[in-house]
Amino acid sequence: MTGNIGRFFEDYEIGEEISHATPRTLTEADNSIYMSIYPTRFAVNSSKEFAMACGFKDRPLDELIVFHTVFGKTVPDISLNAIANLGYAEGKFFRPVYPGETIRAYSTVLGLKQNSSGNSGLVYVRSRGENQNGKLVLEYTRWVMVKKRKPLDINFKNKIPELSENVNSCDLQIPYDLNFLEYDKSMAGSDKGFDDYIVGEFVDHVDGCTIHESDHLFATRLWQNNSKVHFDTNARVDNKRLIYGGHIISLVRALSFNGLENAQIVFAINGGSHVNPIFAEDTIYAWSEVLEKFDFESRNIAALRLRSVGSKVQDNKMQLKDKEGKYLPNIILDFDYWVLIPKFHKRS
Amino acid sequence: MTGNIGRFFEDYEIGEEISHATPRTLTEADNSIYMSIYPTRFAVNSSKEFAMACGFKDRPLDELIVFHTVFGKTVPDISLNAIANLGYAEGKFFRPVYPGETIRAYSTVLGLKQNSSGNSGLVYVRSRGENQNGKLVLEYTRWVMVKKRKPLDINFKNKIPELSENVNSCDLQIPYDLNFLEYDKSMAGSDKGFDDYIVGEFVDHVDGCTIHESDHLFATRLWQNNSKVHFDTNARVDNKRLIYGGHIISLVRALSFNGLENAQIVFAINGGSHVNPIFAEDTIYAWSEVLEKFDFESRNIAALRLRSVGSKVQDNKMQLKDKEGKYLPNIILDFDYWVLIPKFHKRS
Amino acid sequence: MTGNIGRFFEDYEIGEEISHATPRTLTEADNSIYMSIYPTRFAVNSSKEFAMACGFKDRPLDELIVFHTVFGKTVPDISLNAIANLGYAEGKFFRPVYPGETIRAYSTVLGLKQNSSGNSGLVYVRSRGENQNGKLVLEYTRWVMVKKRKPLDINFKNKIPELSENVNSCDLQIPYDLNFLEYDKSMAGSDKGFDDYIVGEFVDHVDGCTIHESDHLFATRLWQNNSKVHFDTNARVDNKRLIYGGHIISLVRALSFNGLENAQIVFAINGGSHVNPIFAEDTIYAWSEVLEKFDFESRNIAALRLRSVGSKVQDNKMQLKDKEGKYLPNIILDFDYWVLIPKFHKRS
Repeated sequence: MTGNIGRFFEDYEIGEEISHATPRTLTEADNSIYMSIYPTRFAVNSSKEFAMACGFKDRPLDELIVFHTVFGKTVPDISLNAIANLGYAEGKFFRPVYPGETIRAYSTVLGLKQNSSGNSGLVYVRSRGENQNGKLVLEYTRWVMVKKRKPLDINFKNKIPELSENVNSCDLQIPYDLNFLEYDKSMAGSDKGFDDYIVGEFVDHVDGCTIHESDHLFATRLWQNNSKVHFDTNARVDNKRLIYGGHIISLVRALSFNGLENAQIVFAINGGSHVNPIFAEDTIYAWSEVLEKFDFESRNIAALRLRSVGSKVQDNKMQLKDKEGKYLPNIILDFDYWVLIPKFHKRS
Repeated sequence: MTGNIGRFFEDYEIGEEISHATPRTLTEADNSIYMSIYPTRFAVNSSKEFAMACGFKDRPLDELIVFHTVFGKTVPDISLNAIANLGYAEGKFFRPVYPGETIRAYSTVLGLKQNSSGNSGLVYVRSRGENQNGKLVLEYTRWVMVKKRKPLDINFKNKIPELSENVNSCDLQIPYDLNFLEYDKSMAGSDKGFDDYIVGEFVDHVDGCTIHESDHLFATRLWQNNSKVHFDTNARVDNKRLIYGGHIISLVRALSFNGLENAQIVFAINGGSHVNPIFAEDTIYAWSEVLEKFDFESRNIAALRLRSVGSKVQDNKMQLKDKEGKYLPNIILDFDYWVLIPKFHKRS
Repeated sequence: MTGNIGRFFEDYEIGEEISHATPRTLTEADNSIYMSIYPTRFAVNSSKEFAMACGFKDRPLDELIVFHTVFGKTVPDISLNAIANLGYAEGKFFRPVYPGETIRAYSTVLGLKQNSSGNSGLVYVRSRGENQNGKLVLEYTRWVMVKKRKPLDINFKNKIPELSENVNSCDLQIPYDLNFLEYDKSMAGSDKGFDDYIVGEFVDHVDGCTIHESDHLFATRLWQNNSKVHFDTNARVDNKRLIYGGHIISLVRALSFNGLENAQIVFAINGGSHVNPIFAEDTIYAWSEVLEKFDFESRNIAALRLRSVGSKVQDNKMQLKDKEGKYLPNIILDFDYWVLIPKFHKRS
């Protein structure tokens, strides 16, 4: 008998529903371990009292813990034989996850596109995470390049789904009792609110962090992501452990605290590109660009659409692409997402 | 004044009872940290709801956390001056340990056998873990080779205990309200139940994991195991940190998920041999052999006796020993134990 | 926009009150992660039942977790541009911190002293930690050498606060319902109590621990200490990660268990000097000197004032300084503090 060796391109069917094992109960401990892995300091995830003053029932799990947990569960069924994780789109967080809640994950196959080489194909899935009561907590689309079992197999009828490039501000809803009416700026670490950020502005997050091999191993296991390339040094020809892309998302988000201290909650993920692979001992710096703004005009809640970028060099010019529109070689992550941020009353 | 330098062979007496310091309260956090160290995905330890559907009061601590915690407490009194940890036998888990419970450990000296060299001797102990109410949770026998204080001391009256090589299926009891009547196979990750495994069959667990130095250090400290060879690079002539044998047991058990997804609970430990030492950056693969089967004929509960093997090479032939009956040099663990597994109704 | 680049010497004013971001809720998980990082085995922090038998309401967080948490919060405002963390004094712990409590940190600028070079100056602050109810849990003074923004700026009126070198025994109070009346010595790991230690006596803690790079990274992040030199290998000319001094305090305290098993609670910090920098793969040994004794003459509670020393070599002579009174090059920490220890009834 042989354990799961993973699916190949031919093993997917359009419309197929996949239930992913194993449900995972998240606790206070997952928040603390997350804080021991990433230099994050956002007040909502750090302080129970701060979170409750914002209308949460308890200190919620960091949204990226929820994202990684759902993602990790999809790996054995979707990306064990993936050549590359190509992109995300249409990601939305629907409700907070509190300590003690359990996440289950499901995916629907949206599209299949055989590559011209015949060796592999793109698999598009819509994945969702539900809590123990079957309530939706997160939904996102991703597409991966998956090996074919029989490379020179017959012709194939491609189906590529239409994807929106970003979650429009008109789609944004505040699905829970969030409020920023009694927001303590000094405890949050900054008095910069919604009105202090301008569309087109760049924020330099100053700090850098050199990734240690242990950082991503503990993180990736915590989310029960069992992709071989992260753990088995025999899985790649260079015998290196490839760092899980989501690790970089969390690291860049944590670094972004310095300059975006009040951007408390990740609310939607429009897209993410892992531009270059990352290995231990690389040092990551981050900057953000304000792409869009939206004011809910309720309970002091507003939103920023940000592009946060991870880079292997500290670049004061915060340059993303070269003249031909190609990513610079130092860029490792281009992440487009919405955050919730308080709108402070005008200062005199 | 000098702290504890550990006992020597002469310091033990047959029948002696040793109370080990320090009691340890285990929590949800220990489960989460365990999941961040080992790639484990068994549903009972991962999901509170899954565990409760199986009759548990809460998500139990992984049984191996309990084993390592008891083992760790015995180290200062039993194996601080051990040359080698030679074997385990007659291990039984008597009840689940839930978050918030506290483990105490005790040992009784069962046997003493001086080696012919006169430099060392075998110490046989029966160790047990109790919870905060004094209820037995785990019992096992182990024997270690311990240095003598005075190598050329007088002759010694050996006493070697009789040990059963395995826990017989007739000794197995289900000591708690376990039931597999409403078992969710898709969430557990596989539809292979008791009837799908045949005595003599081998299961290839496919995945490998390269051990990083940080993995075993965090694990071994978590269990308060203070054996010098794991932590002080001056303790061995090669200046390497020796990996705690129990780390390999947990790693092989975690890897065994792939192929034994429904083998939810480790129930008894018949024996374990750490065949070769292991150091950081070694990659471990695993396979299992089904040694015996037992059907409780109650609440869909059945048991498999498994030999799970850890190997430094991925060997499709799953070979354990050479023609002379000696372990192959790539073998690092030979672990013989019972697991509880559901018996599914026959599929048409 | 640019994130916080840290304050310079000119940015402080005598008497200024600084509220530090971000509050941090500490949980059982922080205790468990602490135990996975340091080889600590003190019974009060390890066992809920043991702690409650000593009068605690629950298992308290290790006092050094509280110290590091408060310290970490002060870093962005006090020591981001620090050249050196020079000393601590007058540290007192006022009440236990239990899982679920939230720590906020505040500092008052006590003194400023420009260095003769004009390039930097000493900043003296009194920092305090409060719980979610605004109750004081910890207070201490520290002084750091901070870079000047404009090195050749005008003359400066120095103000240096008077600091007591130690917390006098007459200042010691037991601020909570602690009692050692039903103390279980065998579970604590030793029968050595207050009367077994003599002023002037040295205790050899026997064990050593080689620090792995991952150890201090996880610890320092856990306390949200974002000082660049610990995380960004570009921050120092030697491209090494400097180990946070507090990591050594925790490691030496953990090693001191072997010989001071009943020194359950750190109660006051008189002073601490980080004599030499420490990097990964250094091995740390520890010894302690009994400096002073104090008997509360109530509920079997007594106190020892200890000097615990961390050393890069295992020195049976336990020598601290050379003939000229300079620290030996192997010494890395000289830590002066009070611990609470039970006074056992005289043994016959």
